[in-house]
Amino acid sequence: MSKIMAVNSGSSTLKWKLYTVPDEKVIAKGMVDRLGLSDSVFEVEFDGKKISEMGDIPDHTTAVNKMLDKLIDLKIINSYDEITGVGHRVVAGGSIFKDSAIVTPRVVQQIRNLSEFAPLHNPGQAAGIDAFEKILPDVPQVAVFDTSFHQTMDPVNYLYSIPYEYYEKYGVRKFGAHGTSHRYVSQAAADYLHKPLNDLKIISCHLGSGASIDAIEDGKSVDTSMGFTPLAGITMSTRSGDIDPSLVAYLMQKLKITDPTEMVKILNTKSGLLGISGVSPDMRDLLATRDENDRSDLAIKIYVNRIVKYIGSYIALLGGTDVLIFTAGTGAKNAEIRADIANSFNYMGVKIDKKANEDGHGTRVISTKDSTVQVMVVPTDEELMIVRDVIRLTKYSD
Amino acid sequence: MSKIMAVNSGSSTLKWKLYTVPDEKVIAKGMVDRLGLSDSVFEVEFDGKKISEMGDIPDHTTAVNKMLDKLIDLKIINSYDEITGVGHRVVAGGSIFKDSAIVTPRVVQQIRNLSEFAPLHNPGQAAGIDAFEKILPDVPQVAVFDTSFHQTMDPVNYLYSIPYEYYEKYGVRKFGAHGTSHRYVSQAAADYLHKPLNDLKIISCHLGSGASIDAIEDGKSVDTSMGFTPLAGITMSTRSGDIDPSLVAYLMQKLKITDPTEMVKILNTKSGLLGISGVSPDMRDLLATRDENDRSDLAIKIYVNRIVKYIGSYIALLGGTDVLIFTAGTGAKNAEIRADIANSFNYMGVKIDKKANEDGHGTRVISTKDSTVQVMVVPTDEELMIVRDVIRLTKYSD
Repeated sequence: MSKIMAVNSGSSTLKWKLYTVPDEKVIAKGMVDRLGLSDSVFEVEFDGKKISEMGDIPDHTTAVNKMLDKLIDLKIINSYDEITGVGHRVVAGGSIFKDSAIVTPRVVQQIRNLSEFAPLHNPGQAAGIDAFEKILPDVPQVAVFDTSFHQTMDPVNYLYSIPYEYYEKYGVRKFGAHGTSHRYVSQAAADYLHKPLNDLKIISCHLGSGASIDAIEDGKSVDTSMGFTPLAGITMSTRSGDIDPSLVAYLMQKLKITDPTEMVKILNTKSGLLGISGVSPDMRDLLATRDENDRSDLAIKIYVNRIVKYIGSYIALLGGTDVLIFTAGTGAKNAEIRADIANSFNYMGVKIDKKANEDGHGTRVISTKDSTVQVMVVPTDEELMIVRDVIRLTKYSD
Repeated sequence: MSKIMAVNSGSSTLKWKLYTVPDEKVIAKGMVDRLGLSDSVFEVEFDGKKISEMGDIPDHTTAVNKMLDKLIDLKIINSYDEITGVGHRVVAGGSIFKDSAIVTPRVVQQIRNLSEFAPLHNPGQAAGIDAFEKILPDVPQVAVFDTSFHQTMDPVNYLYSIPYEYYEKYGVRKFGAHGTSHRYVSQAAADYLHKPLNDLKIISCHLGSGASIDAIEDGKSVDTSMGFTPLAGITMSTRSGDIDPSLVAYLMQKLKITDPTEMVKILNTKSGLLGISGVSPDMRDLLATRDENDRSDLAIKIYVNRIVKYIGSYIALLGGTDVLIFTAGTGAKNAEIRADIANSFNYMGVKIDKKANEDGHGTRVISTKDSTVQVMVVPTDEELMIVRDVIRLTKYSD
């Protein structure tokens, strides 16, 4: 069996998972943290064991070299040749990448050119691709974009109600994010239900520290809650989601901030659940403190409220929905939040099966048989989706 | 019968309507335009006639004096004593005014203090109140706020997901607008349907050049699409409605704008239908040009799309809806737009009666008998609501 690696690299991190295909098993995974900084952390997990090393790893190439050599040392692979493909997560694909893409020098350059749309992510991801290209020059690589699934959106949904020339000149439009996750869970839900994806109207709730809702019809993303950047949409751990845009100006004046990017940084890093509660960005902490802390309780209620309203707006947009999916950290693991959200739709015949919601495991339906919408938990697996894209685009599936 | 005047004054305008009560008939109306500028315009309409004069009217007091004297000249009133109350529209009531208020020096000061929330409106409205106080010192005046109807919102709906201290220190929250209109049409709809307002879930669409959607339950505003300012929510004639807040920073950089209020001004005055279409801020112009102009068509579709999504979100929030109201310029007069919006809810059993929608007049139901939601047209009348508030608060109804 050949092996394919899924990579998620950042400016100072490199996370990876090695799969055998076609059986799609993870045979090893690991990460490098504090890349380019002193005291870098190097970890490999395989076969139930975990190896952890400290040391200075100055750049992505050194990290990839060290990682591949360790795979040989540990006899996880016998030679580099066993790796028949590498897939890379890339955050921003702009309007260029409507699907995942086989890496070429031109593609890497385009990823770098799109850094303006994801300054914290695209440069590190391009560096990760370059490192693999240098060390494994004959192995095909595939870039898998968080945005490309949403490229099926109609202009009616992706354009803002601002001067049209801002779209033409500056590329201002809704791109969305979490596309790889929404794509994975919508397909997995259809498979689980033994129904063609194309026959289903699906609303997918990716509720992690970043969070987005996606309206899916005919297997295509119709609309999504994140916007030009991942700041927009629902309340997140530290991100505000949608606010009156005039507040950016009002708060800059009040806070005596002159650089608008500083204000946006506050909306990205000090807002959301953390900003409302003053307690924590983590939903579990808020649930644990809601009885004694009014603002923890308030943050949870606002979080649920915004999700319910987005789901409602997408039910209207799709003209009903067949499936409502919960995924990612809070979505897949928190039965209380799922129940709060789904029970808001009791009025239209949505009914949660308490036992399936609270006690079940893995991919499952958590609504009752007579529920008008099938509510599901589908743990996401973006790395597996990346591996499948490598296979699909390179045909190295045997 | 006593007479009550409804006044809407701005920094350079003063519009008024004189009603007899309790029969609620308009016996005269008029306006002063270019107040404080040269070539002011002074108009009175009564009894099917219209008087129009030019001349310099330097301030609100002069305008009110001239208007009242003209009412005597024209024998519309015999003396000032016949006016038993004056009601004033005020845009921003902040968190202070949870209902309309009898004017006192303290109330006028508070209206001035709230100017930060409506810099283009509150100062002129306070000046209008002062002018009437000077000339009719013994006549009770009532301030009627666009925001007070929304003061029933729960913090879950009115707070933003930003640091809580911004609410505590700077009063940042959702205030909404068009409250007098949403209050009027929801009551009028209940009256028309012979049902208690308190038993109805209502979604009210005030679609004028400014536009907002309101979710009403138990006669109270639960949530509304406008925000801290009237910029937020759905696409308007020249206002963007909701956008990714990070776009304020991104566009400032692209447009080389250093003052964030300049950017917000663009979002208020050059965006919305005008910005998308590049043709006109007026829906009628867009409908007239949609066949030959793709961007007119696009603007209309985006407009309908945002309204449909907000209605959907409020159906979810309220757990269903009994009544969907259309009012204001486009809402009350444009059958095509109403049909586009309402037909998006066919999936849940909403059915429009084509004839009632297209050929009917005034307040009416435009859905079929078997429609799951009663869709209505209710022409708004904010001035009449102001007059009723004067009566309610002063008891000068006889």
